[in-house]
Amino acid sequence: MSKLEGNVLIAQGGGPTAVINESIVGVALEARKFPQVHRVYGAVHGVAGILNEDFLDLTQETTHNLEEVALTPSSALGSTRMKPTEDDCRKMFGTLQSHNIRYFFYVGGNDSADACRIVNEAAAQANYELRCIHVPKTIDNDLPGNDHTPGFGSAARFVASAFAGANLDNRALHGVYIGVVMGRHAGFLAASSALAKKYPDDGPHLIYLPERTFDIDRFAADVKDVHERFGRCVIAVSEGIHDADGVPIATKLQKHVERDDHGNVQLSGGALGDLLCDTVKEKTGIKRVRADTFGYIQRCFPGCVSDTDQQEAREVGEKAVHYALWHDLDGSVAIKRTGNYSVDYHLQPFENVAAQTRTMEDEFINEAGNHVTDAFIAYARPLIGSGYHTPARIRAPRVERAD
Amino acid sequence: MSKLEGNVLIAQGGGPTAVINESIVGVALEARKFPQVHRVYGAVHGVAGILNEDFLDLTQETTHNLEEVALTPSSALGSTRMKPTEDDCRKMFGTLQSHNIRYFFYVGGNDSADACRIVNEAAAQANYELRCIHVPKTIDNDLPGNDHTPGFGSAARFVASAFAGANLDNRALHGVYIGVVMGRHAGFLAASSALAKKYPDDGPHLIYLPERTFDIDRFAADVKDVHERFGRCVIAVSEGIHDADGVPIATKLQKHVERDDHGNVQLSGGALGDLLCDTVKEKTGIKRVRADTFGYIQRCFPGCVSDTDQQEAREVGEKAVHYALWHDLDGSVAIKRTGNYSVDYHLQPFENVAAQTRTMEDEFINEAGNHVTDAFIAYARPLIGSGYHTPARIRAPRVERAD
Repeated sequence: MSKLEGNVLIAQGGGPTAVINESIVGVALEARKFPQVHRVYGAVHGVAGILNEDFLDLTQETTHNLEEVALTPSSALGSTRMKPTEDDCRKMFGTLQSHNIRYFFYVGGNDSADACRIVNEAAAQANYELRCIHVPKTIDNDLPGNDHTPGFGSAARFVASAFAGANLDNRALHGVYIGVVMGRHAGFLAASSALAKKYPDDGPHLIYLPERTFDIDRFAADVKDVHERFGRCVIAVSEGIHDADGVPIATKLQKHVERDDHGNVQLSGGALGDLLCDTVKEKTGIKRVRADTFGYIQRCFPGCVSDTDQQEAREVGEKAVHYALWHDLDGSVAIKRTGNYSVDYHLQPFENVAAQTRTMEDEFINEAGNHVTDAFIAYARPLIGSGYHTPARIRAPRVERAD
Repeated sequence: MSKLEGNVLIAQGGGPTAVINESIVGVALEARKFPQVHRVYGAVHGVAGILNEDFLDLTQETTHNLEEVALTPSSALGSTRMKPTEDDCRKMFGTLQSHNIRYFFYVGGNDSADACRIVNEAAAQANYELRCIHVPKTIDNDLPGNDHTPGFGSAARFVASAFAGANLDNRALHGVYIGVVMGRHAGFLAASSALAKKYPDDGPHLIYLPERTFDIDRFAADVKDVHERFGRCVIAVSEGIHDADGVPIATKLQKHVERDDHGNVQLSGGALGDLLCDTVKEKTGIKRVRADTFGYIQRCFPGCVSDTDQQEAREVGEKAVHYALWHDLDGSVAIKRTGNYSVDYHLQPFENVAAQTRTMEDEFINEAGNHVTDAFIAYARPLIGSGYHTPARIRAPRVERAD
């Protein structure tokens, strides 16, 4: 067990998820069980809060309210997209040291793992003993070394539900429906739309992923083909689809390309969906073509949360505390699958996760590059949790014509 | 009781809702209890199915499966946006007569009530005895004579949930968030975003409705003001917002204005959200501005359904059968509120509903025309049903600075 006596600091970084507060609360409640922990602090707006010395004393929050917060989507402490410089890191230790913080837990994606690594290295250089644990979360499911990441299952449940509804809508009124799903480099979330399929002719009939080059003529031909077969077509498109040169189709339309501190291009907005709509209309002659961009609501939608995801998000927080307090280790907590369906956790070096991106494995994408395989369905289905209601159809026979 | 012996025909028209199948199943199961009803048919794709003599024999469907269908969003029989001409109507009676259909139930909005009226009149002219009942549904809540309409409560629950999530997201990462909500002439659905507010500084901070003229400079000034107060701003906008001349802001951006058979302009797509985003950036200098267009997923999202809405959608179907079979009447079923919260039903003439549009009453809109009143909250809250989970916040005290 760690002999380091002092305080705990928890922070969140990057885009929120529906279950990220489960991890925060998992850390906070588990850390309270260790006598060497005096106080549990939460940094307001992640790295920015550490730089500004803006902490909440979670030790003075009720367990009841923490449990209510755990069930609330998005980062309750506030988040940030800021990437700390070396200078920032030096300043951060001053703050950590002055508050006798000895255990730092940072919940986030690969950018946050990278920030965690920088803090950890700077602490070592300054001879300041500090346990650092990165706690994984991302709706994109793009962290290496993880079977999947907390936040993904709930977002996947939203996407599957949205496509189940869109498919029913499209079946009632026909035409072509395009849903644009989040996912910059990894197509896992767009791929999860496939979980909406129940009957053989259900949509999504086509799925386009950033793991494959997007060819607009090929796309239009695919849509025409499906529309001729079923009289309708439902399509899932990842916002990160790109041409052969790797240029995102979405940014081709933007007047001003907006980037965050990590150099990530801003892909949101309805332009990609509208472009694909116009393309289908022009190239196929189909008249009723509609596109929705799911946007921000897919990552924090209350009431569409995977219970499996919730439980795992809680456990990665608890395990993070175990690695630091029981085992005196630094690193990034990761989920591994141990059965169908069961998981366990391990700790991996920051370098495995930091600034790395996992993309969809080849076995998950069909040969034509316009849908997923059964292996993906088997992989993703347990992650969206229990109580997922599937649609039913009328099976009544047709009435004979009177004439 | 009606002495008319023969068959029942059920059809659906217009955009689907999350609970429209409850009404279909309500009609089908209730009608089976009357000995003068031989068969219960469902028309495939509404009026189009009647013209093509495309019926399913719902009498040969299991009750179990009908109950599963009732829980499934969107029109299980298929829908249509087609408006029948006088010629169409004459052709329709031929079909109805040849199948000995004596009870016709049409589930839909005001356009469908109008179609119902035409069928009823043509039947009278042809001396063909036919009971016609319009069963209300519309997510827009725009049918006159109804306290509210089936389908609205579930869509409102989706919009409230989406804004609750968007508000939490915006609170974590700040900036300006705009959500564009369905609603051509009536702002009820955009107004329902207000149900997402729990804490006094929660969004949506601003709500723009088609009942008021949209002034882009006034809008930008409102946003700037809220952003200065809270460091962030969440905005709900109805897709139907228009300028002083009544021209929808959305159509000002379209190259080709698309209209359906009823002359309704197609308002979907992400252009309105993107325009408002650019406007805020340009006129306020705020950098992080994001817009989502909720689009089609808001009307058929499985797993985000109001139980109150489900029950009422079932009852309007059952009551429709009672009006026709017990009372030998034609007309449009309507919901009236009789308590807080309880409802009852009445029958009104088609003319009250057909081709009419209810818009939000003045008492529901604030004086500035950029939000709703408490009266609206009191009106709308019961409609989104039970089990609506509200967010919780951390209330822990700030940690004193160490220096």
